[in-house]
Amino acid sequence: MPAGERTPRAVNRETISELTTGRLSIYLRCLEHLESLQIRTISSQALAEQFHLNSAQIRKDLACLGEFGIRGVGYDVAALKQHLVDTLGLTRVRTLVIAGAGNLGMALVNYQGFNARGFQVVAMVDDDPAKIGKRSKSGVPIFETSELSRIVQEHQVEIGVIAVPGPAAQSVLDAMVAAGIRAALNFAPAHLSTHQEIKVKDVDLRINLESLSFYLRNCADTYPSR
Amino acid sequence: MPAGERTPRAVNRETISELTTGRLSIYLRCLEHLESLQIRTISSQALAEQFHLNSAQIRKDLACLGEFGIRGVGYDVAALKQHLVDTLGLTRVRTLVIAGAGNLGMALVNYQGFNARGFQVVAMVDDDPAKIGKRSKSGVPIFETSELSRIVQEHQVEIGVIAVPGPAAQSVLDAMVAAGIRAALNFAPAHLSTHQEIKVKDVDLRINLESLSFYLRNCADTYPSR
Repeated sequence: MPAGERTPRAVNRETISELTTGRLSIYLRCLEHLESLQIRTISSQALAEQFHLNSAQIRKDLACLGEFGIRGVGYDVAALKQHLVDTLGLTRVRTLVIAGAGNLGMALVNYQGFNARGFQVVAMVDDDPAKIGKRSKSGVPIFETSELSRIVQEHQVEIGVIAVPGPAAQSVLDAMVAAGIRAALNFAPAHLSTHQEIKVKDVDLRINLESLSFYLRNCADTYPSR
Repeated sequence: MPAGERTPRAVNRETISELTTGRLSIYLRCLEHLESLQIRTISSQALAEQFHLNSAQIRKDLACLGEFGIRGVGYDVAALKQHLVDTLGLTRVRTLVIAGAGNLGMALVNYQGFNARGFQVVAMVDDDPAKIGKRSKSGVPIFETSELSRIVQEHQVEIGVIAVPGPAAQSVLDAMVAAGIRAALNFAPAHLSTHQEIKVKDVDLRINLESLSFYLRNCADTYPSR
């Protein structure tokens, strides 16, 4: 089968775990980078080496999506990239609301990746009267949390971002569910009671520090000491 | 072999990828949670089901670390947890400096996970004269970036966190290398030139949004619509 052709397969939600979707995003970043260098095809081995990934894992993950590779030639970069964009649901813009206009909320509303290719922050909500009515540096308005339902309906908001302190996180999640939001990203250090109506993804930034700690503990000795 | 005994094995840095260390952190979270519920042993299958992970992947990842499971009984929760703590290098405190005292830096300096069990933020640096000499809400002092070397030596700082705008990130990384920092967490949306002396981990918060987008595209239809 020539590069570029493929056998699309319905994505089986049972076989694609959350860890896999994280890897699909990483592959997408790699392919975008390769495309910017005008590289047209790449083997799973080369992809693995260039981006410090595991080639068997790459083949397994991509096999879940259909047939993309040709033995001896590799993957068609543009076709595989487009299929990952489709699979990840990035072909249309999904709107976001950020709850919490503190330091974290303000950092996120100005975060490039939250306002590009497929995502757009349309509003923030907060309970602090001093913040309501103001705007982020990027121009996103801040409303009272009680206006969440109106905002969600008006902008067809699909994703809520929870950037409030831990003790406030549950009531914010409940309000998002009541407003009809279907997916939430939770930055608060709180175990939230889940609802059937919403998919909650907890973001644990500490995992990245632990990965560096692993490196310092196990690998740093191979580098020159000063 | 009874649960709790194990054959520790030197960690082979070639077999443990960055994606694996991320999973080790997730397993550690799971085991901490199980321990809080006073659960003593768990099978890879039960671990996988309870935390939506993949049991074959769990067995493969943990096999890299030595022998922990007993067929028919599972893993000893406390022993495996302690071994993950050791493997991830979390048995002693590693000190951090955060570069950038804007919204993101301020959110991170107050972030629980950056100031608990193994990590401590000792200082921030910034180039804005209005910020220098002040402290974060949690009491961490803000210094001029030019003081980085002194801070690193005084506190034996091992990890630098880059929370500055993209265009400033490279010079901050270079300053961290010059100051003797061995590992850095980069939140800036910039492709940084790497140095042999430092391990840089890029944090891409957008990956979490893409995972929710995947869910909305592929799975949301199984939930009741409203």
